[in-house]
Amino acid sequence: MRFGTGIGIVISVVGIAMGATMEGTNVMVVVNVPAILIVLVGTLGATIAACGLAVHIKLPKLYMKALMPEDLDLVGRVNQLVGFADQARRDGLLALDEAVKSIQDPFTRKGIQLVVDGTDPDLVAAVLDAENEAMRKRHAAGRAPFMQAGALAPTMGIVGTVFGLVNVMNNLNQPSTLGPLIAAAFLATLIGVGSANVVFLPLANRLKELSEAEMHFREMTLEGILAIQAGDNPRVVAEKLMAYVPPAERPSEEEQAAAAAEQKQAA
Amino acid sequence: MRFGTGIGIVISVVGIAMGATMEGTNVMVVVNVPAILIVLVGTLGATIAACGLAVHIKLPKLYMKALMPEDLDLVGRVNQLVGFADQARRDGLLALDEAVKSIQDPFTRKGIQLVVDGTDPDLVAAVLDAENEAMRKRHAAGRAPFMQAGALAPTMGIVGTVFGLVNVMNNLNQPSTLGPLIAAAFLATLIGVGSANVVFLPLANRLKELSEAEMHFREMTLEGILAIQAGDNPRVVAEKLMAYVPPAERPSEEEQAAAAAEQKQAA
Amino acid sequence: MRFGTGIGIVISVVGIAMGATMEGTNVMVVVNVPAILIVLVGTLGATIAACGLAVHIKLPKLYMKALMPEDLDLVGRVNQLVGFADQARRDGLLALDEAVKSIQDPFTRKGIQLVVDGTDPDLVAAVLDAENEAMRKRHAAGRAPFMQAGALAPTMGIVGTVFGLVNVMNNLNQPSTLGPLIAAAFLATLIGVGSANVVFLPLANRLKELSEAEMHFREMTLEGILAIQAGDNPRVVAEKLMAYVPPAERPSEEEQAAAAAEQKQAA
Amino acid sequence: MRFGTGIGIVISVVGIAMGATMEGTNVMVVVNVPAILIVLVGTLGATIAACGLAVHIKLPKLYMKALMPEDLDLVGRVNQLVGFADQARRDGLLALDEAVKSIQDPFTRKGIQLVVDGTDPDLVAAVLDAENEAMRKRHAAGRAPFMQAGALAPTMGIVGTVFGLVNVMNNLNQPSTLGPLIAAAFLATLIGVGSANVVFLPLANRLKELSEAEMHFREMTLEGILAIQAGDNPRVVAEKLMAYVPPAERPSEEEQAAAAAEQKQAA
Amino acid sequence: MRFGTGIGIVISVVGIAMGATMEGTNVMVVVNVPAILIVLVGTLGATIAACGLAVHIKLPKLYMKALMPEDLDLVGRVNQLVGFADQARRDGLLALDEAVKSIQDPFTRKGIQLVVDGTDPDLVAAVLDAENEAMRKRHAAGRAPFMQAGALAPTMGIVGTVFGLVNVMNNLNQPSTLGPLIAAAFLATLIGVGSANVVFLPLANRLKELSEAEMHFREMTLEGILAIQAGDNPRVVAEKLMAYVPPAERPSEEEQAAAAAEQKQAA
Repeated sequence: MRFGTGIGIVISVVGIAMGATMEGTNVMVVVNVPAILIVLVGTLGATIAACGLAVHIKLPKLYMKALMPEDLDLVGRVNQLVGFADQARRDGLLALDEAVKSIQDPFTRKGIQLVVDGTDPDLVAAVLDAENEAMRKRHAAGRAPFMQAGALAPTMGIVGTVFGLVNVMNNLNQPSTLGPLIAAAFLATLIGVGSANVVFLPLANRLKELSEAEMHFREMTLEGILAIQAGDNPRVVAEKLMAYVPPAERPSEEEQAAAAAEQKQAA
Repeated sequence: MRFGTGIGIVISVVGIAMGATMEGTNVMVVVNVPAILIVLVGTLGATIAACGLAVHIKLPKLYMKALMPEDLDLVGRVNQLVGFADQARRDGLLALDEAVKSIQDPFTRKGIQLVVDGTDPDLVAAVLDAENEAMRKRHAAGRAPFMQAGALAPTMGIVGTVFGLVNVMNNLNQPSTLGPLIAAAFLATLIGVGSANVVFLPLANRLKELSEAEMHFREMTLEGILAIQAGDNPRVVAEKLMAYVPPAERPSEEEQAAAAAEQKQAA
Repeated sequence: MRFGTGIGIVISVVGIAMGATMEGTNVMVVVNVPAILIVLVGTLGATIAACGLAVHIKLPKLYMKALMPEDLDLVGRVNQLVGFADQARRDGLLALDEAVKSIQDPFTRKGIQLVVDGTDPDLVAAVLDAENEAMRKRHAAGRAPFMQAGALAPTMGIVGTVFGLVNVMNNLNQPSTLGPLIAAAFLATLIGVGSANVVFLPLANRLKELSEAEMHFREMTLEGILAIQAGDNPRVVAEKLMAYVPPAERPSEEEQAAAAAEQKQAA
Repeated sequence: MRFGTGIGIVISVVGIAMGATMEGTNVMVVVNVPAILIVLVGTLGATIAACGLAVHIKLPKLYMKALMPEDLDLVGRVNQLVGFADQARRDGLLALDEAVKSIQDPFTRKGIQLVVDGTDPDLVAAVLDAENEAMRKRHAAGRAPFMQAGALAPTMGIVGTVFGLVNVMNNLNQPSTLGPLIAAAFLATLIGVGSANVVFLPLANRLKELSEAEMHFREMTLEGILAIQAGDNPRVVAEKLMAYVPPAERPSEEEQAAAAAEQKQAA
Repeated sequence: MRFGTGIGIVISVVGIAMGATMEGTNVMVVVNVPAILIVLVGTLGATIAACGLAVHIKLPKLYMKALMPEDLDLVGRVNQLVGFADQARRDGLLALDEAVKSIQDPFTRKGIQLVVDGTDPDLVAAVLDAENEAMRKRHAAGRAPFMQAGALAPTMGIVGTVFGLVNVMNNLNQPSTLGPLIAAAFLATLIGVGSANVVFLPLANRLKELSEAEMHFREMTLEGILAIQAGDNPRVVAEKLMAYVPPAERPSEEEQAAAAAEQKQAA
């Protein structure tokens, strides 16, 4: 799953290039500097105008994130939280103070820290909800340039093609140059539609799905933290949280028992 | 209803093929390898980039599911739940412990098990709601590649056609080859629009409707389980649940009485 | 209002046919069997694939419903409910038992029956809400094929036209046949766009509006039934329910008094 | 602001006509009876089919309303309501009985009347909310034909153009007539796109904005009426209601004091 | 970030112009008065018709706002509010009376003033919420002409192009003029699509993002004001409000301590 996006783009480009080559087109014609300037620079400028300059500086990072997302280990997180619930139940919430420092994930750490500090449960929920909502907004802002580019690139392609056709029409008296000129005009549409469909729109969708997966992960974590604070029975916590895990990934009952035992050992 | 999707695709393909043949076109021209490479491989790559690789491995299963959905027997489920309500009312909730093992549907079994275990009603609702929400998200993720393909294939068709036209324009000096070249260029649009309209978009919609039907089925089941836990009168449970059944499928009052009697017998 | 949809389609078809005839086109050219096969059979198959076979069997009934909707008599329903409220206030809720049998509308009858049976108000609301929600879903499923057809027919038209153009391009060496072949190719677009705009999309919208009107009617009825059960003053019930009636259709105060008196007489 | 819509349409038509004339086109060519029949009569029929006949009878009134909306005097309404709050505070709610008759706006009058009648606050809110919701639905139904026409007219234009092109293709053997025939075919697209963009869509949007402005006006009024019934301090009522007024239109503090004094005088 | 929109538009225009020039087109051809009249004046008229005249008078101000937005200093606002919370905790809410006059931001000042006046917390929230909602509506109304223009300009371009082609078709007998006439016709599409993509749509999106950022800023402020009124511990207030700040902009703990100390000094 992790390299899906890169693989997908490669498959798409190879498929299109092979098809075009078989048709007899030299695929390198798409490396047409005027068309690229009009479509890609024109689109980049428009997305900067639409979404601001700051978010564009982070684009390379977002490209990397879409191509190589970090794995979200739902079952591992469930086991970790059930382990905390168990420890809290046995030794009290303060016993988690030791564990806090060893938590890698900043969101979980912040939540458990708030619980250990004796913060009011409503405030814990409010602070963590606000963190999630802020992350959701950041993600939406981050993928906005991709969505804008996906919508704008094809029409920038039309701008380029129409510009080319205007040129063609003003050169009707030189019939021998018409074919290549029209071909060049079409390249702008090709670049616009192609870049939108093969790169911008898929990446925008991918980033959206990754954001939703992370929100899901955090909602599960938040539910677990609140259950720990409420002093829920570890079995109940596990029941609640496992509902967030796709059935296919859920451990069998024996595995679960083993994991619980191991967690208890570690605690 | 069960084979509707397969039948529909066959009707659509036959209608288009017959029409095209009557017009004098050889329909086998659509088996154009370059166009298929550009459009279908290009689209597949883009949907992998958009939705990740994992979901594409399940695609054949989803195709089968859309073509041959399992039947959802609303009335049977109502009768089953009313039977449980009746038994619980007579012999107490614990009496359902025996029945749990014989429940086929995992969702119903999990719910009744939670009830038998004496879980707090709010927690039962929360756990089952989370199951439903997770199923809804899984379904949405499952049909996402179909929706993406439905949106991307026509524009991939345009990419193929424009590539073809670029080729045409660079060969204007050989007029005799122009017609077939343009025809071949058009095939990409044909394949893109056709596959989107006849396969991808209908399947995406079909999967959405099947998902909604299953959600409806489960919401009814959840309501029934909570009513059983609350100790509702079986007649009230039947009244509540029958509202989820389309009037045309509701049994007449005599049938209902007979079913209730039979259920009681079985219990 | 009742025959609006049929009249509208006739006006649209006549307008288009007259305009085309004045332009010099023989409008009978649209009866082009290949184009009709591609577009209409292709679309029918795709909507069957998208929405299932079952709903298509009910389509003729839905066409009739859109063309000749039943009248929803808001004021009559208000008077009926106020009459019940009056009777219930004077003689108790059980006094409505007699009236129940004479209620024509199944939804109102079910609601009043539940009230007479002494059902808990929350349960009455829940059961009737579930009925309404189920009706809303049935209506949405019923109009789905029209919406799908409205979206698919124009692109099926493009499929037909491109098929035709492929044929044209392969016959470029017979210039005398080109004109009629291109004309025939265009007919598919004409049929696709025309059927979507004149029939499918308007009917889909009409069915949506009829569904909303019926939901509005039922919401008013539900509010009235709950007010009767709560023992509200008939004047208050009338006040509440009249807000659902468009001002232009509301009876003047004298009419209202007369209607109330008459209702009282009848009760 | 009041004549904005009419002025806008005139500006748009004049701009287009001047541009076309400068290009050398005789703008009167758009008065092409066949194209108008196909596009405008075809669209009218389709909107009747989509939205019913009844709403079309009110269309001239809606055109006038969009062109000459009534002014909504937010500040005047605030002052009126604060005046009532003041009077109610000093002399009791019954003292407003006198004032009710002099209220011009039916919504405000109905609300204050309900308050004077000693209706339960929840019922006052419910009745007035239902009025607002019903108005919102009426407005939505009223602008539906404009939205439908905006969506349908361009495609009806395509129907007209394709009909014309079919005609052209069947007359390819008379080259001298081709130019004018193609020009005539294009006129249908021109009329369809032009009428949608210059008339139907702007009017639909205008009616939507006017509806929202009236909803805003009524929500403020409802809040004011409930505050009067709750016996709120007039200063608090003014504070609450002024938040609904755009800062630029809010009176300065002196003006507000003067208005309050005047109102008190009048009361 | 502040000059992003202007920079973006410049990049886009330069990219398109360079590309077109390299293709051999003289980019000054777009300064075609008839096409500009049709597209830009036609669009302006239609947006006036759609959105009213009043909002168009403020357009230059909105252009400036989109090009040079004011900076929203989230961390500064957090520190200010935490400072107030600290002061209120030490010296009581009335002690803030002095500070109110020195608050620059009208929204914060109004909120703190209400708190100092001893207004009921629910009323404080209601008044400030109403302010925010009204601002949101004003912003939406302000960007509506940009969104309308973005949707209308390309189709106005088609109107212009079709007008030009009608002209072309009526001059088929003068072949030498055809090329330039067609080129001129295409310019309308170019201007319509270009202005929509490079100016109107990006500005509409930019204004939407700026509006959301300001709403976010105000929601944080509102939460802070309510926390101050509730007498929350300054550390809790900081915790709550920092969740609104993107992690990257959050001060490290030492910075935060320093800021708190400084604020205390100043108070």
